[in-house]
Amino acid sequence: MQHAHPAHDVRITGFGSYLPALMHTNATLPALDDPLEPADLARIGVHRRGWASEGEGIAEMATLAGRRALDRAGVTAADLDLVILANWTQRRYLPDFAPTVKRLLGAERAFAHDLGCACAGFLYGLATATEFLRNPRYRRALVVASEQTSRRARPGSRATVILGDAAGSFVLERAGRDHDPGGGQLIDYELASDGAHAGIMEITEAGWVHSHIAQRELCALAARSIVEVSDRLLARNGRTLADVTWVVPHSGTAGVQAAIVAALGLPAQRVLSNYAQVGNVSSASIPVALDHFVATGQVQPGDLVLSAAVGGGWYAAAALYTMGKPAPREARA
Amino acid sequence: MQHAHPAHDVRITGFGSYLPALMHTNATLPALDDPLEPADLARIGVHRRGWASEGEGIAEMATLAGRRALDRAGVTAADLDLVILANWTQRRYLPDFAPTVKRLLGAERAFAHDLGCACAGFLYGLATATEFLRNPRYRRALVVASEQTSRRARPGSRATVILGDAAGSFVLERAGRDHDPGGGQLIDYELASDGAHAGIMEITEAGWVHSHIAQRELCALAARSIVEVSDRLLARNGRTLADVTWVVPHSGTAGVQAAIVAALGLPAQRVLSNYAQVGNVSSASIPVALDHFVATGQVQPGDLVLSAAVGGGWYAAAALYTMGKPAPREARA
Repeated sequence: MQHAHPAHDVRITGFGSYLPALMHTNATLPALDDPLEPADLARIGVHRRGWASEGEGIAEMATLAGRRALDRAGVTAADLDLVILANWTQRRYLPDFAPTVKRLLGAERAFAHDLGCACAGFLYGLATATEFLRNPRYRRALVVASEQTSRRARPGSRATVILGDAAGSFVLERAGRDHDPGGGQLIDYELASDGAHAGIMEITEAGWVHSHIAQRELCALAARSIVEVSDRLLARNGRTLADVTWVVPHSGTAGVQAAIVAALGLPAQRVLSNYAQVGNVSSASIPVALDHFVATGQVQPGDLVLSAAVGGGWYAAAALYTMGKPAPREARA
Repeated sequence: MQHAHPAHDVRITGFGSYLPALMHTNATLPALDDPLEPADLARIGVHRRGWASEGEGIAEMATLAGRRALDRAGVTAADLDLVILANWTQRRYLPDFAPTVKRLLGAERAFAHDLGCACAGFLYGLATATEFLRNPRYRRALVVASEQTSRRARPGSRATVILGDAAGSFVLERAGRDHDPGGGQLIDYELASDGAHAGIMEITEAGWVHSHIAQRELCALAARSIVEVSDRLLARNGRTLADVTWVVPHSGTAGVQAAIVAALGLPAQRVLSNYAQVGNVSSASIPVALDHFVATGQVQPGDLVLSAAVGGGWYAAAALYTMGKPAPREARA
């Protein structure tokens, strides 16, 4: 079996997440224009979602999630060579946020830029950072997703139940003959883009998300796209889904997640999502979920994880990685 | 002298540009609220700038510039592995434009994404594509900048004199033992980001560009940033400005360009800009200028070019490359 880049060894040495101080339960969420029945709420499946407050901007949330990942990795911000920020929910022309994240972290020598790619932005960012780390002059990258999807929901609409704010991040480090940073290994990734479905999700003049496609069709498209990139990724790396310990997908809605599980043909218990506790946090969902399930003890060192996401635009992306033992910070000085 | 990546040989095999059908002269430009004296117009230095019309969207302009670059390279869109689109002047949440450019070009297997980074977006895109081309499974990339800066100028304001619309692109190909695509060589690049100056340029609620810094300070900051990345880039590659045939910068305004020329300590005739003929076209300015000066015969095969840009956000970037002989299309089948 031919491996894609045998000489390129990128490690995930840290991960972290941030949820807003204000986490709305279904009871505290402002009233909807058309109140939902308990059965509808159960079907939607989100019990809690964050609403970022004034001081919790995109850059501030990204910085907090980034610091947690850096702490876990035992890496100081000053040692970062690049910072890639996935975000689409607050960007509008300029300025973007990544240079401010760099400044807030104190990542003095890093270059920093934003990426869109909607909900697939974190995986596109991982891919981009992985390739920059092939360049001998770069060794450490922070990839962080920070989203305020709640701000793209029309107040009083059903979308306010589903959409939440959060940030999540990975620290990536290049390993080599002279440097074993520990951590899990980012084995490979796969990216796809589909302009034929570019217009199925749009943002209205007022800034609210609007779908031009029936929910059923969206679920089918999401499942098909995720299976496609996942199959290509696994096949190229000589693996099958049977080898994968956990699938940690971006699950935009409960319906999308069910469609993904069905299409992959997996037992639902091998798919990890904390969608119910945080809502749809877009590109932040994968690192936020991973952090959650490491904390609960479900995800263990050595586990093989497949993460996949689709994004409005249209994008699909997947990454295959192992989880490493977090090194005690003292040992990394 | 240590070279940064001796084993990584990326070629620029094609370049192309697109200007809107409607190119306003100073005589046809809609009247300003405060009319300018001829001396003011001369000082601003822009005689012509494009206004994209209905059918000339970001994706359409990018596609036309991209096709010209592909034609010159003798590469078909179906052979592209990735498409990176620099654009900040029309993006707003989602969808982004790159997947549509992919579709319009017919770049079936490519992944495609947008990049912001304001006026530095094209060079950030070149850097990103260069690193993706280290991955053995990617061989050909299209980097295209497509901007409608005219839409970010308040109608009737002085900014309408300066800001113009355009697209420009490069085709990059990885060379290797088994593959010599010809073209010029993308020798190296340098990227920097500066969050301390993130807020100096903003876009108003109405969508107009607004500067929070005096023009004199902006010129000084731009010049300082460009000298910094250029010096690092040249030093790392064992070159000095004396080795460079042409500097092709992004020149946001005549004042910025004069400051850059002064700071680099170069004779003005070694700095090439067609700002006077196209206005400030933001991230598209470098490939648009290069295409122009190859057409005029000033830039010749074998010339060593340094391109540098700053962007509101704040970014600085530079790239060092040689110009190649465009291969006749027939020879590349």
